[in-house]
Amino acid sequence: MSIQRWERQAQRGRDILNESIPKQWLASTSSLPPATEKNVIDFPRKSGLLSERELWITDLSATKLVIEMRNGNLKAEETVIAFLKRAVLGHQLLNFATEFMADEAISRAKELDSYFERTGKLIGPLHGVPISIKEHIGLKNRTCNTGYVAWVDKVATEDAHLVRLLANAGAVFHVRTNQPQSLMHLCCSNNITGATLNPYNRTLTPGGSSGGEGASTGFKCAPLGIGTDIGGSIRVPAAFCGSYGFRPTSMRVPMAGIQVAAIGQETIHGVVGPLASSSVEDLELFQKAVMDQEPWDDETSLVPVPWKTVAPSREMTVAIMWDDGVVRPHPPVVRALKLAKEKLLKAGIKVIDWEPFKHDHGWKIISSLYYPDSAALQRKVIRESGEPVLPLTQWVFDFSRAQSLTHPEAWELQLERDVYRDEYNALIKSRGVDFILSPAYPGVAAVYGESHYWNYTAIWNVLDLPSVVFPSGLTVDSTLDTLTEQDKKYQPRSEVDEREWAKYQGPERYEGAPVALQIAGRHFKDEETLAAAKWVDAIIKDDSKQSKL
Amino acid sequence: MSIQRWERQAQRGRDILNESIPKQWLASTSSLPPATEKNVIDFPRKSGLLSERELWITDLSATKLVIEMRNGNLKAEETVIAFLKRAVLGHQLLNFATEFMADEAISRAKELDSYFERTGKLIGPLHGVPISIKEHIGLKNRTCNTGYVAWVDKVATEDAHLVRLLANAGAVFHVRTNQPQSLMHLCCSNNITGATLNPYNRTLTPGGSSGGEGASTGFKCAPLGIGTDIGGSIRVPAAFCGSYGFRPTSMRVPMAGIQVAAIGQETIHGVVGPLASSSVEDLELFQKAVMDQEPWDDETSLVPVPWKTVAPSREMTVAIMWDDGVVRPHPPVVRALKLAKEKLLKAGIKVIDWEPFKHDHGWKIISSLYYPDSAALQRKVIRESGEPVLPLTQWVFDFSRAQSLTHPEAWELQLERDVYRDEYNALIKSRGVDFILSPAYPGVAAVYGESHYWNYTAIWNVLDLPSVVFPSGLTVDSTLDTLTEQDKKYQPRSEVDEREWAKYQGPERYEGAPVALQIAGRHFKDEETLAAAKWVDAIIKDDSKQSKL
Repeated sequence: MSIQRWERQAQRGRDILNESIPKQWLASTSSLPPATEKNVIDFPRKSGLLSERELWITDLSATKLVIEMRNGNLKAEETVIAFLKRAVLGHQLLNFATEFMADEAISRAKELDSYFERTGKLIGPLHGVPISIKEHIGLKNRTCNTGYVAWVDKVATEDAHLVRLLANAGAVFHVRTNQPQSLMHLCCSNNITGATLNPYNRTLTPGGSSGGEGASTGFKCAPLGIGTDIGGSIRVPAAFCGSYGFRPTSMRVPMAGIQVAAIGQETIHGVVGPLASSSVEDLELFQKAVMDQEPWDDETSLVPVPWKTVAPSREMTVAIMWDDGVVRPHPPVVRALKLAKEKLLKAGIKVIDWEPFKHDHGWKIISSLYYPDSAALQRKVIRESGEPVLPLTQWVFDFSRAQSLTHPEAWELQLERDVYRDEYNALIKSRGVDFILSPAYPGVAAVYGESHYWNYTAIWNVLDLPSVVFPSGLTVDSTLDTLTEQDKKYQPRSEVDEREWAKYQGPERYEGAPVALQIAGRHFKDEETLAAAKWVDAIIKDDSKQSKL
Repeated sequence: MSIQRWERQAQRGRDILNESIPKQWLASTSSLPPATEKNVIDFPRKSGLLSERELWITDLSATKLVIEMRNGNLKAEETVIAFLKRAVLGHQLLNFATEFMADEAISRAKELDSYFERTGKLIGPLHGVPISIKEHIGLKNRTCNTGYVAWVDKVATEDAHLVRLLANAGAVFHVRTNQPQSLMHLCCSNNITGATLNPYNRTLTPGGSSGGEGASTGFKCAPLGIGTDIGGSIRVPAAFCGSYGFRPTSMRVPMAGIQVAAIGQETIHGVVGPLASSSVEDLELFQKAVMDQEPWDDETSLVPVPWKTVAPSREMTVAIMWDDGVVRPHPPVVRALKLAKEKLLKAGIKVIDWEPFKHDHGWKIISSLYYPDSAALQRKVIRESGEPVLPLTQWVFDFSRAQSLTHPEAWELQLERDVYRDEYNALIKSRGVDFILSPAYPGVAAVYGESHYWNYTAIWNVLDLPSVVFPSGLTVDSTLDTLTEQDKKYQPRSEVDEREWAKYQGPERYEGAPVALQIAGRHFKDEETLAAAKWVDAIIKDDSKQSKL
């Protein structure tokens, strides 16, 4: 059988990746676990492939890395080398990278070290922090394929605006990460570099579309990563991989230089934001480092809302949404919500139940507004190379409209979107609620190819609310998460509910998977939402130092 | 000939108007000037129809009215009655109203007076200020025809958000004002209440689309009015009628409850903003009264950028744009710019020339994005009643695209728009410019039906820059504004340039017309732009009290 043209093109994408891997850090195949070993999260320690110091470095949060560098205990060079080593190992186990940038990263780290030696000062708030980058965020003179085979040879002419700002703040970019075809899976597979796996269970998806970032931060190949999110693409990978992720309010964080097929589309604003390996604090560090540079002064589609420092306060009302009224969450997620409620009440936080408001209506709006042109541009890029349409690409093409909307139809939906936002906002105010704690997904990390239901995250996209995903500290438990007799008798409310409920079956399918939660705040209250997430995260995990903040 | 259905429908719109006119204040036909008398701006004083006190009241700015009320020198009731009387007279001369609301206004004014008597306090920063309202801004239980015959019976179920906020601040709404069919003329004529005239010369247009507001504030029927602007619709009427007008940056001032045919469209954001009879200060008063109520807390499509108080400063660089590179301004406008330059330099302000940057490109973008659906919705509303399409409606339908854009074509234009904004913004920064002083239109008030060229105002819409129009203090001069021999030899750069230049012919056509200027500031620098406009206005008019601020 002859090799098709698209396969040769895809091979060029793989060549870029393969040539970029720093070979000196590749583990021998014999030292790697067998493909049947699902959970590899502890492999860096257990394997002995990383030194104690490298393990110490890669376990630190970005915030702590910067503190150690400021105190002179750590150099940027050894830091980025430790993360590069862990990333190479992570890539061998999880296939999360699309390109390594080891030489440039080490060279930049050396510059930072010499700056610090010369001046005694850090260059900025992210001095020496290694950051992984989702591939479709443009880097000057590097290809930017955005998960499409046709774009394997497309080269960015400059760094994305956000990348420039992070670099100003001292960040070191060491690895680019994988994304799904069309960028519209809550999963992470394409026809170029293939499928990325979940470090907690390699039969599960890392989530998506920022799945490479989920794996990168989950496996601690980077303390911080950059993802993008139009329906859950930052938060779902964070949830599935045991990381932290933040979806900012739109029009705050610079988008210029990020490639997508439908650039210029505004029916639903995509956003860019951070994932972090270890803490909400790191998400704040990232946001503040960017926003303090006033990106709106150059990128005029952003709004000039400066980042403010918010004092965390116990004086808040947290509403728990147990179920969105459409799809019933799986037992491990409910267990995490119950734990959260108990701990929050014990900590003296006011907790009430959140009755969801027309989430099916919200989904109708957002799913219709993703592709008003019936995904014509995405289909075109796929057709250009002749690559196959992957099942989850077809899925999103199908649940969005088969027929294009007319402009007036799209405008009517935009009006409905704005009315729904105002109504939801009024409800949050009238119920006296500050934050909504909810699932991030009906279950934990989905079995590969099964991540179909978006609306535990997409609802905050259509409403444009800032939202944070954080690990509950729980993982799926073979005893506690079995289906009860009552569970087995559950009568689903709809076909969608039935499909999602049927996926659970029992804890075995999801062995080892972390259980995440999500907290959303009001429109533009990004700072308050992160402050609340920090607090709630600490309370749930009984981190007394944090929760006394 | 039988009366057509649309004519009967239109008659109902006129009935609403006619029934609403407070008959006690109608001047007898014999006391009115003949239709051939062009300039009626001084008629209220010359006619003796208003008392000295009524003339004094209606000559005051909103700011001064509030001061007099705070000092107990003036009551809200006599204030609104004075403005109502002037408005009835103005309507007889200019046909600017669509509905009077005398009873409600007087009753509200009495409430305010009794509040003041009871508490010794004003109810808010607009206590007792009469404000006229463009008709398509919804008022509860009143019709909202938006200039379409088909909508003559359409009733708003609630007040527009902006109206509620202004009412909270103490405003009194006494008259609703005219707008053109489709809202897309820089003129003011529809098939319901007909054509509104310019108070300085009744053969000229008051501008549009907020032409009723231009006449209202120009004739001092209200110290403040509310207009809307997507291509110049606040600023052109202010310019043509000798008033002040402000186009805020979009997404700051509440839009909910304002009716248009293509509600939900976002390709170019329309904005709502104030016109004022007497001062830039009143524009600031209006904006601050609204923004201090944090409208974004309820209307989530607004951005939470609080209104700030800006100290006016002489430390600014004003760039003068003499010509947009597309259409050459007429002699009176050039004379006003020359006067401005001279006075600004004398006042020690740094003045440079502004070389326009691709204004034709800006026009291509905005004119294509007005009607991506080829005005299907507007045409449909017109078809519904069978009313005739007016010439300037046809004009805008024609200069926008005959064919609909596909979604991807519209998105490409939106991307071009954002790129153009960023480029223009970078240019303003790199040239060290704070404000751009320019014409508001190629000439003074156009002859009725001739207001064709939008891009001296629309350019700031596509760039989303705040901009203020103010009178230069000059009017067309029969000696100074004649065409020189050189002018007569001018070789136009294009058909458009030729068309606009040919309209001038000489000062006679524009006898009595005021000459306005426009000042634009950077994106979101609304406060700074108003502060600069206040300063520049004072300097040009040698208002020593103001310019020493």
